[in-house]
Formats: sequence, structure tokens, C-alpha cells
Amino acid sequence: MKIAVDAMGGDHAPKEIVLGVMKAVAQYKDIEILLFGDETKINEHLTDKTRVKIIHTDEKIESDDEPVRAVKRKKKASMVLAAQAVKDGEADACISAGNTGALMSTGLFVIGRIKGIDRPALAPTLPTVTGKGFVMLDLGANAEAKPEHLLQFGLMGSVYAEKVRKIERPRVALLNIGTEETKGNELTKKSFELMKNQDAYEFIGNIEARDLLMDVADVVVTDGFTGNMVLKSIEGTGAAFLSMLKMSLLNGFKNKVAASFLKKDLMELKAKMDYSEYGGACLFGVQAPVVKAHGSSNANGIFTTIRQVREMVEKQVVETIKSEVDKVKVGGTETND
Amino acid sequence: MKIAVDAMGGDHAPKEIVLGVMKAVAQYKDIEILLFGDETKINEHLTDKTRVKIIHTDEKIESDDEPVRAVKRKKKASMVLAAQAVKDGEADACISAGNTGALMSTGLFVIGRIKGIDRPALAPTLPTVTGKGFVMLDLGANAEAKPEHLLQFGLMGSVYAEKVRKIERPRVALLNIGTEETKGNELTKKSFELMKNQDAYEFIGNIEARDLLMDVADVVVTDGFTGNMVLKSIEGTGAAFLSMLKMSLLNGFKNKVAASFLKKDLMELKAKMDYSEYGGACLFGVQAPVVKAHGSSNANGIFTTIRQVREMVEKQVVETIKSEVDKVKVGGTETND
Repeated sequence: MKIAVDAMGGDHAPKEIVLGVMKAVAQYKDIEILLFGDETKINEHLTDKTRVKIIHTDEKIESDDEPVRAVKRKKKASMVLAAQAVKDGEADACISAGNTGALMSTGLFVIGRIKGIDRPALAPTLPTVTGKGFVMLDLGANAEAKPEHLLQFGLMGSVYAEKVRKIERPRVALLNIGTEETKGNELTKKSFELMKNQDAYEFIGNIEARDLLMDVADVVVTDGFTGNMVLKSIEGTGAAFLSMLKMSLLNGFKNKVAASFLKKDLMELKAKMDYSEYGGACLFGVQAPVVKAHGSSNANGIFTTIRQVREMVEKQVVETIKSEVDKVKVGGTETND
Repeated sequence: MKIAVDAMGGDHAPKEIVLGVMKAVAQYKDIEILLFGDETKINEHLTDKTRVKIIHTDEKIESDDEPVRAVKRKKKASMVLAAQAVKDGEADACISAGNTGALMSTGLFVIGRIKGIDRPALAPTLPTVTGKGFVMLDLGANAEAKPEHLLQFGLMGSVYAEKVRKIERPRVALLNIGTEETKGNELTKKSFELMKNQDAYEFIGNIEARDLLMDVADVVVTDGFTGNMVLKSIEGTGAAFLSMLKMSLLNGFKNKVAASFLKKDLMELKAKMDYSEYGGACLFGVQAPVVKAHGSSNANGIFTTIRQVREMVEKQVVETIKSEVDKVKVGGTETND
């Protein structure tokens, strides 16, 4: 199995990307990595070239580049070349920790959409208090969505949760403003109707945002706008809470002593809310696994993402989505080219 | 000034409602309270009848009643009668800790909408890490929204923040998936355009959900669906975090000792995230102040809400909205009846 990795994307590229790759090839003997980026810089950190091939390029997409334009103009960017290798059949999947919007555009324009899936969806796995986590999609690949898109998101999330997260008959829920069937806006009401009337996956109904972290579903479906809002609200609240907790813990000698007692547990608490352990965010709906590692990924984050992508290839996630997509076909769905 | 209070709404009605009223009339000599509900039960807790008048009714709206239907059928419900008193000029404002949807329907159908405001909006004040807080609207009065509604929400929030929260030239922001002007869905893009091109209030542009608690704006405008999602995400994350923190603190003898050291500060931390201190959620856009106290309000929560409503009446929040609404008039806005 060959995995294309963008060595130049993310806050700690290429060093942490290369170190993560080193760790992955040492661990998994069945993978081969194609590393795209600045050869000189990559070589500074590459200690072993076994099953690692460098494809040199000077060009890269910056984190603040306008996504669609960057992908069109920077045809030799490390991210674009990594996707091109997948398109050309030289690699089975690709990974980048760089510009999220650009990776979505690259996936869509270079690798291409699965026939029958109208819109790709970005899907991270988020933490729950139980440590089980859940897949949520779409987290921002599209600002507008139609009910049939959400119906398809449910299928893609369910296939992934079953194959990679090893959850039997995953519970797929629709994020809504209330749990009753009649609740919501036009989009959620119609989506509920479509999801209820399919049997490709296990639809358990509406869930509310306040229960997301309570392990009430394995897959949560929403439109990209709402998903983005909810994800950022969770992140922002977590960060605000941690910063206030930190201030409390440093407030006077007694608290500092107490904090030292609690240090290990508080680190664990923080780690529990850090969802990079679950791997990167998948771009579902394209013809091969494309995964966005966190921008702040260290070597371990990259290793985790490679492990995740390896599993996606091995368990044929994309092939399964392709073969099951007809089960959620709705009259009036856009034609796919 | 006369304030109509629904004595039967909320988890701790009528006891805590009555105790809150007692506290308010003792503190503010310029208010008179009309208390709607079961006279016998109210009298069990009423220690002083100075400036308090009970209007007896057997009927009440339950927390799980379907809002619109309940308001139409239960014409003698304590909540409906309280609103009717405002409509009839017998009271200046009304308060309930009961069914939120029913209170919104009551406000809209009984008291009526302000001419020029197309949709009412529900607006709580949420906490920030600095303790300053911000007003957010709409939090669920409408599941669908148009750009001109959001434009009007900005005005209503700004008037309230200035008059009641005493913030000079409040910073009004649009909640969006990115800070750049070009970001968002159709609704936020068009709303941005409208808000940018008015001068009735200070529009500072887009803000992201992750910064909400960081004191980046005084008024945050969004559609009711997104607002509801974001509020519940914040609440859910806060609750998940507190429950995990609690588990950590009870994890072994050493942690319990540390927890006892930190008790006071952790209670403060919890209190900081508890936004009932800022009062209830205002239903803006109706002809008089209508405020939803938290369902779990204790006497102090009711007292705080009465204080808030008193301020709204005194500072003429509704009158100011009425007189300024023409400043945000957009061609194509629905006609108001």
C-alpha cells in the first residue's frame, strides 16, 4: 500500500511530518510512503529511507492562501502533487496537515468525486466523556446543504465508523434543535424524513448539540455551516474553561499546591478533550482516502493519521461507499458527472 | 411601574417565584407586581402583600405542552393572563420561567409585534471569561431567518446592550464560519452586506464561534437555528468539562485533599459560567418587555430577572427600538400588520 504525504503542510512541517512518517514505516511493514516537498529540508530529518520515496518540489500552499485559487495556480505544490499521485494510481491515499480548504479543493478537483455522492464532507472524530468518540460530518466542506446531501453523509459516516472505528451497526443521528421528529428548520425536517426512510444505515433520530459529548451517537450528521459553528463552539468553550481553570489553579500558594497534586489528572483531562488522538478529519465523497491531519500535528499526530489512512485503505472504505451509495438514492438528486 | 409575573412557570414554581418577588419589592420601591397563578399556593410563600397583587387562575402551561397550541387553548393560563395584562395596559412588562416556546407565542400573539420588526428574537446574555458577558440573538425564536431579520436583530441587541447593560456604542458582530467578509452561507453573506451599510449601530464584522466567550463583541447576531446549536454546544461542553473535572477530583485521596483546597475557586469558576446572573432571555421585537427567566431559577434568579425588566422599562428599551427601527429599513422587507 502506498500513501502520499504532503511534507510541507502544517505548523511543524517538514520536521514533524517526516518524523511521523519514520515512525509509521517502522511500525507498519506493509506501507510505502511518497513524501512530497523540499528534498533538502526533508532529508534533514529523514533517518531511514526504507520504503520512503521523496518527490521534490519547491512549491507549496500556504496556510493563508485562498484555497480554490491556490490549487488552480500552484500546480506543483506538494499538496497538489500528492493528490495527483493518487489520481494517477501511484498512491492509494493522501494526507496533508496544511490548508484545509485547499486540501478539500484538491481532493475534489484533482482526485474527483464518487459517482452518486453530490457533495464531499469533512469529518473529524470528536471526543466524548466516555472516551469512545463520534464521527461528525459535514464540518465545513460546504456552506450550503440539501437534505439528500445529509442523507449521503449518514452513509459515509456509517461506513467509516463500522470499518475503521469497528463499531457494529453505528448509530447515525441528525443534529437538530430538538429531539422530536417535527423539530428544526426546513433542511433538518426534510433530512429527517429521508434518513428515516432508508435502510442502508441505522438512523436513530435527532440529537441536540448539548448531548454531543455524552456518547449518544456514533455518527452525527449536519450541514457544513452548522457543523463548523458547533465544532468551534466546543473548541472555544473547552479552551475558555481550561484557561479559567488554569487561572484558578495559580491563584495563591494553597491552590498551587493543590494543582501540583492534580497535575497528572488534569493533563489526562486535557488529553481527553484533545481529539487528535482519533486521527485527522476525513474528506469523504472523493475517489480515495484523503485525510487532513491537524495543522498543529506533531510526529505522533502524523503517525496516528497514517495509521488511520492505512486502515481506510485496508478496509476499503471508499469502495464500500461506492457500492452502497445507490441504497440512498433519492429522486431529484443532482446528476453526477 | 407594574410588572406581571407568571407565578406558575419553572421548575421551582410557585415557591421560588414568590420568594424572588418578595425580594424585588423589598429592594425596589417603585415597582408593583401582579402575580398570576394559584392563589392558595402563592399565599403559602407570600409573607408581605405590599405592592403585590394576586390574580388567581387554576390553569397553567406545562413545560412539555406544545407551545402554539397551548397558548391558543389555555386562555386562562397564568402565563397568558400575565401577557394579557400587558396588552391591556395593566402592566408594563411580563416575566415567566415557564415553557420558552409558549412564552414566545404568548408574546407574539397576545402582546404583538413592533411595527417594522419582522421577527421577534430570543436574546440571553451569555458569559465571557472576563465576566463582561454579551447579548446573543436569535437563540431560537425562529428556525428560519432572512438577512433583514438579522439586520434588525443587531439593532435590538444594540439598544438593549446600551440601555440596560450600559455599554457605550456596543460592538455588534455577525456570527460566521470565518472572519473575512466573503465567508459564510448565503444568509450570512447578505446579512454582512446589510449590516455593513447601516449606521444605526456599530457593526464590527464577522466573529467565529470559537471566540464567543473571549469578549470580542457586546452583541452577537445569528439565525435562531445556529444560535440554538451554538448555545447548546457551549452548555454541553461546559457540563461535560465540569463532570470530567469532578471525576478527576474524586479520584483517590490525594485528589480529594487537593479538591478541598480548591473548592472555593472551583465554585467561582462554575458560577462564572452560570449565566443566570445576567438575568433572563429577552424576547425582543414585541410591544413590551417580555423576559424568560431560567426554568431552574431560584428566588435570586427571579429577583435578577425582575431587576432586569425594571431596567428595560425605565430605560425605554422597547420605545427606543420602535423609534429607531426605520433606520434599518430595507427595500423588500415584509410588510408589517
